[in-house]
Amino acid sequence: MTDDPARLLAAAWARLAAGAASSANAARLLTLATVGTTGWPEVRTVVLRRADPTAGTLDIHTDLASAKVKELAALPRAALHVWDAEASLQIRLHAEVAVLSGPDAAADWARVPGPSRLGYGVRPPPGTPIPAPLAYDRPADPAAFAVLRCRVVEVDLLHLGERHRRARFRRADDWRGDWLAP
Amino acid sequence: MTDDPARLLAAAWARLAAGAASSANAARLLTLATVGTTGWPEVRTVVLRRADPTAGTLDIHTDLASAKVKELAALPRAALHVWDAEASLQIRLHAEVAVLSGPDAAADWARVPGPSRLGYGVRPPPGTPIPAPLAYDRPADPAAFAVLRCRVVEVDLLHLGERHRRARFRRADDWRGDWLAP
Repeated sequence: MTDDPARLLAAAWARLAAGAASSANAARLLTLATVGTTGWPEVRTVVLRRADPTAGTLDIHTDLASAKVKELAALPRAALHVWDAEASLQIRLHAEVAVLSGPDAAADWARVPGPSRLGYGVRPPPGTPIPAPLAYDRPADPAAFAVLRCRVVEVDLLHLGERHRRARFRRADDWRGDWLAP
Repeated sequence: MTDDPARLLAAAWARLAAGAASSANAARLLTLATVGTTGWPEVRTVVLRRADPTAGTLDIHTDLASAKVKELAALPRAALHVWDAEASLQIRLHAEVAVLSGPDAAADWARVPGPSRLGYGVRPPPGTPIPAPLAYDRPADPAAFAVLRCRVVEVDLLHLGERHRRARFRRADDWRGDWLAP
């Protein structure tokens, strides 16, 4: 394991890029935490669709009517997390989130495979009480498709080894990297 | 897959109990989300140490000096999450969290295995910048040991199958269970 924080950060972005590329990798599924509209923290699984290490952005797809979109409209800050067991690496991120939809998301929608499109436009909207477990429809509705573009501003990495190593990186510091007590 | 919400809830608690019992199970590692002291959501991996389906509580161990303890002192509400791939089940929980330490945590400390005790009492405290990645000590300090006792108040379950099923349960409704659009 490295004593150079820049190498640890590069390794984390490589794991994220691998997750975006293939569902065989741990970082395919992230947890996304937000502050809920009632003040409770909220956390759920999301699928990482794109990772851009150069820009420091991650893309997630969601239904425009989902609770997380409402929460991010009120406070556009998310925490993202993955525990990558193979790399013994916990990746924690803070990101400012822009919600793209309509024409701004049209190019992304065009790349969503047909079966996956059914995940967008659930009626009634996600989270609505229904009288029976399957009392909903899934029309593939491009108007319900949204991209959460997450601009990472802080990265907190914890590598578990014989001795643990933890480092924090901030966009505002040009990703310099500080070691932290784990 | 069941059309009885009570059976879905029982299945979720069984997965949580299995996670508390053995590290071979998915629900051994949960993610815990809090609202940070700067207003950002925070999320990290935690180890599930005990699950009590009857009382509806989950126990997690942490360092009393960790950021999550400070965050929970300010707002004692947590969201907990696990994606159990084997069961195709996402478990999301809201819990009110009590932080137990000192005499209130002594019985739990007595059951922590020797090597695991080194996780408590890191100096300098967790999250403190250090000049090199291993510039910290890990004395096994019982005064730094804390139990997060999470009293679950809401459960949101999503089963991914040929068609998805989602249900929400609230302690205030005596865990009755409502189906939701997924």
